[in-house]
Amino acid sequence: MTITNTDLQNLDKRHRASLINCLSGPKAVTLIGTKGSHGENLALFNSVIHLGANPPLIGMISRPHSVTRHTLEHILETRTWTINHANDQILRQAHHTSAKHKESEFAAARLTAIYKGKHPAPFVEECQLQIACKYVNHYPIKENGTIFIIGSIEVVYLPEDSINEHGELQYDQLANVSSVGLNNYYKVEHLDRLAYAKP
Amino acid sequence: MTITNTDLQNLDKRHRASLINCLSGPKAVTLIGTKGSHGENLALFNSVIHLGANPPLIGMISRPHSVTRHTLEHILETRTWTINHANDQILRQAHHTSAKHKESEFAAARLTAIYKGKHPAPFVEECQLQIACKYVNHYPIKENGTIFIIGSIEVVYLPEDSINEHGELQYDQLANVSSVGLNNYYKVEHLDRLAYAKP
Repeated sequence: MTITNTDLQNLDKRHRASLINCLSGPKAVTLIGTKGSHGENLALFNSVIHLGANPPLIGMISRPHSVTRHTLEHILETRTWTINHANDQILRQAHHTSAKHKESEFAAARLTAIYKGKHPAPFVEECQLQIACKYVNHYPIKENGTIFIIGSIEVVYLPEDSINEHGELQYDQLANVSSVGLNNYYKVEHLDRLAYAKP
Repeated sequence: MTITNTDLQNLDKRHRASLINCLSGPKAVTLIGTKGSHGENLALFNSVIHLGANPPLIGMISRPHSVTRHTLEHILETRTWTINHANDQILRQAHHTSAKHKESEFAAARLTAIYKGKHPAPFVEECQLQIACKYVNHYPIKENGTIFIIGSIEVVYLPEDSINEHGELQYDQLANVSSVGLNNYYKVEHLDRLAYAKP
């Protein structure tokens, strides 16, 4: 089956978004916690991406700032946010944060905001892997108005036994789901560890 | 357990890269096919990201151009590439493309280059989901020298029955793996479909 760029452009808006969002494959299901002039905010993102290890940087894509975007506005205002990885126990709640709520998404989705150390942004208590981020830069993407946000990894919180002997996360012990596109969730189970490849 | 930015910076290079690469969670295992002045090239990327549906755009991060990078150089030279999603049948071969091969990675990993339509870059025949991309722009990330590459989605090839009644990919029928960090692979299995969220 062949789907061309023209076929994609001719789909109605919802179908086009659904299908094209799937083409980048599985993504982490993350909840971005912020606190600013709109209050406590929690938003579902599936665009968190590794950017670099030295210095420790992590990126994510915000949709265009053509409407009010609490997460983006809070990040630019307060320069801090948290990344919280969802798991199957809170999957429906995590998904529910994506609705247009009038109240805080923490309350709407019955998730617990907690504060740690001196970090001003709230973490999600129900998540096993929590990351505190500090603003580094953002790049406006002129092609479609999205914004590539870059943060430094300030603190990582996780259970004691979730790192293996190679110093790698045993991710399915922390978060066992991923998303493909906007609506479909997949369970992730460890399959294999392959060593650094040599010819 | 708490890991601070300073703890991360104090890790040796390999451990730091391993751990920090895990923090963004599951990613698609994709093989990027190009053909240019270095010949046919195939490279393992785990940084493909959805960028926008209208127009259909897809992004990925290239590591810094401080050494020869065939994929990046071919993309800038020929303005075309392919994205091929790996599956468990070819997982070890896909991983093996990441070694420093003197020959083409297609030959080294025993994967089959095929050409489709008028697209100058090779696809991986063993992959069920193949995407032809055309260069749109690239953004140098000054914080660490990485490059954010943006392509338009020109053609998508996939099996006839892999789209559900909502127009979404049944991803595990196309590619049933994801990666976390540099060395660990996870099987993905469909868990749930959650409709567009409303308050």
